[in-house]
Amino acid sequence: MSEAALDGLIEALQRLPGVGQKSAQRMAFHLLQHDRDGARRLSAAITHAMSAMRHCTRCHTFSEHEVCTTCTDSRRDARLLCVVETPADQAALERSGSFKGLYFVLMGRLDPLRGVGVADIGAEALLARAGDGVVEEVILATGFTAEGEVTAQALQAALVARGLKVTRLARGVPAGSELEYVDLSTIAHAMGDRR
Amino acid sequence: MSEAALDGLIEALQRLPGVGQKSAQRMAFHLLQHDRDGARRLSAAITHAMSAMRHCTRCHTFSEHEVCTTCTDSRRDARLLCVVETPADQAALERSGSFKGLYFVLMGRLDPLRGVGVADIGAEALLARAGDGVVEEVILATGFTAEGEVTAQALQAALVARGLKVTRLARGVPAGSELEYVDLSTIAHAMGDRR
Repeated sequence: MSEAALDGLIEALQRLPGVGQKSAQRMAFHLLQHDRDGARRLSAAITHAMSAMRHCTRCHTFSEHEVCTTCTDSRRDARLLCVVETPADQAALERSGSFKGLYFVLMGRLDPLRGVGVADIGAEALLARAGDGVVEEVILATGFTAEGEVTAQALQAALVARGLKVTRLARGVPAGSELEYVDLSTIAHAMGDRR
Repeated sequence: MSEAALDGLIEALQRLPGVGQKSAQRMAFHLLQHDRDGARRLSAAITHAMSAMRHCTRCHTFSEHEVCTTCTDSRRDARLLCVVETPADQAALERSGSFKGLYFVLMGRLDPLRGVGVADIGAEALLARAGDGVVEEVILATGFTAEGEVTAQALQAALVARGLKVTRLARGVPAGSELEYVDLSTIAHAMGDRR
């Protein structure tokens, strides 16, 4: 049973994180047998997202627009700027409903062992963004992992040197965990107890 | 953070079996941030598979061809016909390397409670296929679930009525398992079928 189009689909599905050979095969058979319409929609959604999504010039998160809908939302408190590692972390904070300010998404974190330095996470852009004269407090919400802490420390030093008030999410977040996977009430508590 | 293209992608990914809101979001971010090339390939592979894959007219499995590569493989023993529920079951049998005959894929199974009857699983086509004068033995390899057993029984009656030899995969203790943890009906069957 060797069919190029099927094998190609199974192989391509394995590019998705967390999808191995067996789940990829299950997905392929499911789409072919039960959901060809969904498959076509998925294909179109991928193509559309890849061409439409770029980075917000203000906060660096994924956006279809020059400036994302969060950054242009006038109801949000522009005096608070929350720094996160990834859009997934930002989404988790949004779901927790505990923050009404704006974001800056690093799209990464310092990882000296892998050669990811300050320039790679847009620290320059963050300093420029935080120094817009409106931001009063920068909340560092990088992960409580070794890399997240190193990132927070480096950014804190640079931000404090510019005379900005800098806080960190409270240590209510379990050490060693990625923000994306923390339960929402813990995130909310950590936001309330920030110091 | 509401972005139509991103939301559309996350929603479309949830059409995949076993993918919920959270994994869909993780997949979307991963593709956008780390693997746009893989995303484009996935989109193309889906589109290609959906347009290229149809059903083999002989065995009903998915194929790009009128007749699939397994059915046209002259090295296989055309006297043996193995009946399975799905292409995934067929793939599992192929991986076991224990069968060198041909297949007939029902693309389903009898499920009277959900209104899936004999006509829906291509029983007519199976009878025609098995009655080609070459097939000597039909091996029923439907699942050992309630629906799989009902399917096997119905097909067996029809096939035997046409004078064909019909066998069923042996029931027994799975390889590598401790007897202590095997369910009792499996043990009872293994004892009854001992050889």
